[in-house]
Amino acid sequence: MDDLKKKSLSNHEKFKGKFATHSKIKINSIDDLSWAYSPGVSAPCEAIAKDCSLAYRYTSKGNTVGVITDGSAVLGMGNIGPDAALPVMEGKAILFKELAGVDAIPLCIDEKNTDAFIETCIRLAPSFGGINLEDIAAPKCFEIERRLIEALDIPVFHDDQHGTAIVTAAAMINGARYLKRDLSSLDVLLIGTGAAGNAIAKMLNHLGVHAIQAFNIDGPIHPQNTKMDSATRSLLDEEILRPASTIDDTLKTLIRNKDVVIGVSTGDLLDANMIRSMRPNPMVFALANPTPEINPEIAKEAGAAIVGTGRSDYPNQINNVLAFPGFFRGLLDNRVHLVTEDMKLIAAKAIAATIDDDALDAEYILPSPLDKRVVPSISRAISDHIKTSR
Amino acid sequence: MDDLKKKSLSNHEKFKGKFATHSKIKINSIDDLSWAYSPGVSAPCEAIAKDCSLAYRYTSKGNTVGVITDGSAVLGMGNIGPDAALPVMEGKAILFKELAGVDAIPLCIDEKNTDAFIETCIRLAPSFGGINLEDIAAPKCFEIERRLIEALDIPVFHDDQHGTAIVTAAAMINGARYLKRDLSSLDVLLIGTGAAGNAIAKMLNHLGVHAIQAFNIDGPIHPQNTKMDSATRSLLDEEILRPASTIDDTLKTLIRNKDVVIGVSTGDLLDANMIRSMRPNPMVFALANPTPEINPEIAKEAGAAIVGTGRSDYPNQINNVLAFPGFFRGLLDNRVHLVTEDMKLIAAKAIAATIDDDALDAEYILPSPLDKRVVPSISRAISDHIKTSR
Repeated sequence: MDDLKKKSLSNHEKFKGKFATHSKIKINSIDDLSWAYSPGVSAPCEAIAKDCSLAYRYTSKGNTVGVITDGSAVLGMGNIGPDAALPVMEGKAILFKELAGVDAIPLCIDEKNTDAFIETCIRLAPSFGGINLEDIAAPKCFEIERRLIEALDIPVFHDDQHGTAIVTAAAMINGARYLKRDLSSLDVLLIGTGAAGNAIAKMLNHLGVHAIQAFNIDGPIHPQNTKMDSATRSLLDEEILRPASTIDDTLKTLIRNKDVVIGVSTGDLLDANMIRSMRPNPMVFALANPTPEINPEIAKEAGAAIVGTGRSDYPNQINNVLAFPGFFRGLLDNRVHLVTEDMKLIAAKAIAATIDDDALDAEYILPSPLDKRVVPSISRAISDHIKTSR
Repeated sequence: MDDLKKKSLSNHEKFKGKFATHSKIKINSIDDLSWAYSPGVSAPCEAIAKDCSLAYRYTSKGNTVGVITDGSAVLGMGNIGPDAALPVMEGKAILFKELAGVDAIPLCIDEKNTDAFIETCIRLAPSFGGINLEDIAAPKCFEIERRLIEALDIPVFHDDQHGTAIVTAAAMINGARYLKRDLSSLDVLLIGTGAAGNAIAKMLNHLGVHAIQAFNIDGPIHPQNTKMDSATRSLLDEEILRPASTIDDTLKTLIRNKDVVIGVSTGDLLDANMIRSMRPNPMVFALANPTPEINPEIAKEAGAAIVGTGRSDYPNQINNVLAFPGFFRGLLDNRVHLVTEDMKLIAAKAIAATIDDDALDAEYILPSPLDKRVVPSISRAISDHIKTSR
């Protein structure tokens, strides 16, 4: 076991997990008990019974997010189940709190059936001002999110899709800015069309990137590829993806003459020759974790102008934690009922905008996840957007 | 609106609810992010995937309790629904934390169907070391609790039943102790056979009180009473309750010559003459909230030796908050899988034992809910019980 894993285990054991609750008030007297609990608590209950929107005034609902998983696609570990997913959900919950002051509740749901999982989330909604879906396998994550959005009047956000897409888009924006390239001129290859790949394709399309071809474990994304799931097929049908030239395309033929390659797939898929076959000064975003699609040093040596990975030990870390805390801060502050594509794009631009022209560099296209400017930048941008669109 | 309600509303608004989350660790560096979240968090995930009991070692599960309601019987307000129940669940959650260091999560489930509610709780179980059911209407609360106990290997405790029963039993123990009466010699009338009444009858029976008659909104508990629900009928069948003498008995005829009357029903049901018809020096526990079955002063004047109510503005407050924090502290500390009748009785005795002989008084048969001795007294008693029974 490597040192990081050892440290993680011993710290998790030392603290007995990372998540705790907290009371906003002290209970020092019978008087405190009387207003906060019985009998005085009946006053806010009666008020909410008459007008359920008053839960936002009298309870913590408006600052509380359910971090909900079924444990079917946990980090790179796959379907390890709800019990084993708890450390990740606790981690997410404490990052929400520490970075953005959001009260997030880790909930691991022991239910793999899509309908039953959706029902469960709907039943849980009264306690929450928003739902962050997490680590749910594709393609069911698409249906779960869509149906929850339809059913609920609180924001629902599948972070593995949109968190990744927002941060990848921010990286693309600043990469193009550094290279003085027009986003709409870029030819992109996307490797992987699961939860993250799907959302990245949609987000880049919304950002004005229209020349995107894709490849997944079953081959090139092409109308004749019979193994495509319906979510990926929709990307073709809606012209968000351009079809590969032929059904016989390979990773090697597809990457040729691209300006950008984005990998959300699996480690060590690309080699130096493939990078050399791209257009000059390409961008390489190799997000597979913990092993990227290509070692960043090899990509650099092969001519990549900008390299980003999911890892904290290389420059340009493309990590969801740059997006979800500030994004939910903005949603909750404005009591947003529905997340729109515009809001996600605004968040990507707000992340990108935290880096000044002077600071922007091939090795610094994204701020640190601990940069204190990120959360307010995103939440303020969402607030401004809400105000102007109202 | 009275002053307490006004204060409650303004404080709930000022604090925006009472519940918050808390991170046990600070995220000050990329290194912290690496072990607590990605990629280091995979180590405890993998460990738990191999042995799910390790969730107690590496996560907060073992100190976390779900405080779960459907909002069908909230305090005295009845079926006000899940949204309006949230202030009570938050109140409960912060009392768990402030009094016993338990991390409790307020969850208001939007589902009135019994089967579906049970399913939902089962699906939620991986995140919790215990479940506190709250404010669920009788008789469905009995089936919900029973089936959850059967389905889950974490403790499940419906506080409106057993919390009330534990504290009422503690009051009976100390009342009899003060009056130097043998518990088994007492004739008891129980008014109300809902969630609390049912559990009180079972608990007193377990405590050795066998002469209990009961009365509810449909009349005397008697085999010929056709309106009894099945839970109440079971109390007769199992000889936990003794039948009323005749089906024509009234409150007035039933209370005559009783040593104890326990009301968990509705306000202003009893009068001074009824108290005078009891045996000398009776105990009167009038727990209806906010208006007791009889005004404590009237009961005293009519000869009651000991009077207890649910209210904080009279002596001898019989309040669940005396039981649930310490009880769950004990359950969690010992990783109890199943709550037994013995454990509840032990908790009642532990509460009673916090009052020394010297301090025991007609107006001081129960400690204050804020008495710091209560939680450790209960949890230690449960620990001792577990150790000796292992």
